[in-house]
Amino acid sequence: MKKIIIASTSTIHNSQYLEYLLPVLKNHFNNVKTLLFIPYARPSGITHDEYTQKVATAFSKLDITVKGIHEYENPTQAIAQAEGIFTGGGNTFLLVKQLYNNNVITAIQKAINNGTPYLGCSAGSNICGLTMETTNDMPITYPPSFKTLGFVPFNINPHYLDPIEGSTHMGETRETRINEFHSLNSQPVVGLREGSWLEVQGDTITLRGNLTARIFEQGKAAVEVVPDTDLSHLK
Amino acid sequence: MKKIIIASTSTIHNSQYLEYLLPVLKNHFNNVKTLLFIPYARPSGITHDEYTQKVATAFSKLDITVKGIHEYENPTQAIAQAEGIFTGGGNTFLLVKQLYNNNVITAIQKAINNGTPYLGCSAGSNICGLTMETTNDMPITYPPSFKTLGFVPFNINPHYLDPIEGSTHMGETRETRINEFHSLNSQPVVGLREGSWLEVQGDTITLRGNLTARIFEQGKAAVEVVPDTDLSHLK
Repeated sequence: MKKIIIASTSTIHNSQYLEYLLPVLKNHFNNVKTLLFIPYARPSGITHDEYTQKVATAFSKLDITVKGIHEYENPTQAIAQAEGIFTGGGNTFLLVKQLYNNNVITAIQKAINNGTPYLGCSAGSNICGLTMETTNDMPITYPPSFKTLGFVPFNINPHYLDPIEGSTHMGETRETRINEFHSLNSQPVVGLREGSWLEVQGDTITLRGNLTARIFEQGKAAVEVVPDTDLSHLK
Repeated sequence: MKKIIIASTSTIHNSQYLEYLLPVLKNHFNNVKTLLFIPYARPSGITHDEYTQKVATAFSKLDITVKGIHEYENPTQAIAQAEGIFTGGGNTFLLVKQLYNNNVITAIQKAINNGTPYLGCSAGSNICGLTMETTNDMPITYPPSFKTLGFVPFNINPHYLDPIEGSTHMGETRETRINEFHSLNSQPVVGLREGSWLEVQGDTITLRGNLTARIFEQGKAAVEVVPDTDLSHLK
């Protein structure tokens, strides 16, 4: 049975890295002693080792040891044997390119569909959707495909941002961008604000956190849904 | 001799479409009676016809007729015979995909290098750089490559946006994103604020407009340059 947390962000304002999620993660990873971390998205270009160390510090509060996937000779085997998997945020284009280049897409899908608990934050959440085509990131490198893991039958827009009142900037708002996505693509998009996450338990998908989320479906007006809404029907 | 205007945006706040640029365009396109418009970027998913009509309305003030490239049976020939070319803004991924799918990249490069005057705004400016890897757009479709026209030996970041003071949003600032680009790529990036443009005359590249621009070079601190700065050395 799938057991997944798809979080908008690792970090909320005025809080430590992953701090707001720790009570949830304690339960989510309750059988995990060693967590496999995928640092490929490398925020601000930090190294895989630096990123893994940052994550290890956060998970030490739950007495969970963290090992980076780059520390293993055989990443596919590391995934198959993992007790739990966490993919951190950063740049989605770089993350997806590395997932393809290291040939681990299928291994992750198999492990998570078989019940290995998964956590994604930001870029690590984007890849839980059907495609990465609703990421906010800059395309700093060219991945071989935009198709992603498809743990949910729609797309994710993490760090969802409402239009800034009084802004004089003429660049597209997030909603305009997602509407442009829907001029070419039919799958729904869930705009997750910072502090929200989706909890996936088998085929049940539930919005968690204290904030509403914004749901975009092709040809319909966007709607706000409240925390604890069941989104399992969305596809 | 190349004769190019690379504008951050088509529209500045509280102003009509292209209005702030019209005096410049009057001179830039002074020998042009019919302008070839490339509407592939389709902002908000509008049709090629709708977009071309919008542009035609703006250029009617300069007594210039506008024809969309989609109105021609042979787009390559339309480019070769164009008196002037304008590529409008919208989604850069869609624009680049269409440029490749319609097989017009080489034709545009040839025409512009031979002196056909060119105007790019936003997405149409992104493609003037070496790659589209510093666009702000959402990757709503998968282009066959991120390589673009290379009219200048660096990358463009249009709609350049300074960090918003007091923001509690945890998504990356524009500067962070460009620094992530430089963790993987070596070419400079010119952050053009709305209201700025680059004027290319042969091998001379000059910042125009009333605002400073922000120059990012790999391994260096970003710097601000004032209007009328010669950027020809940047590569």
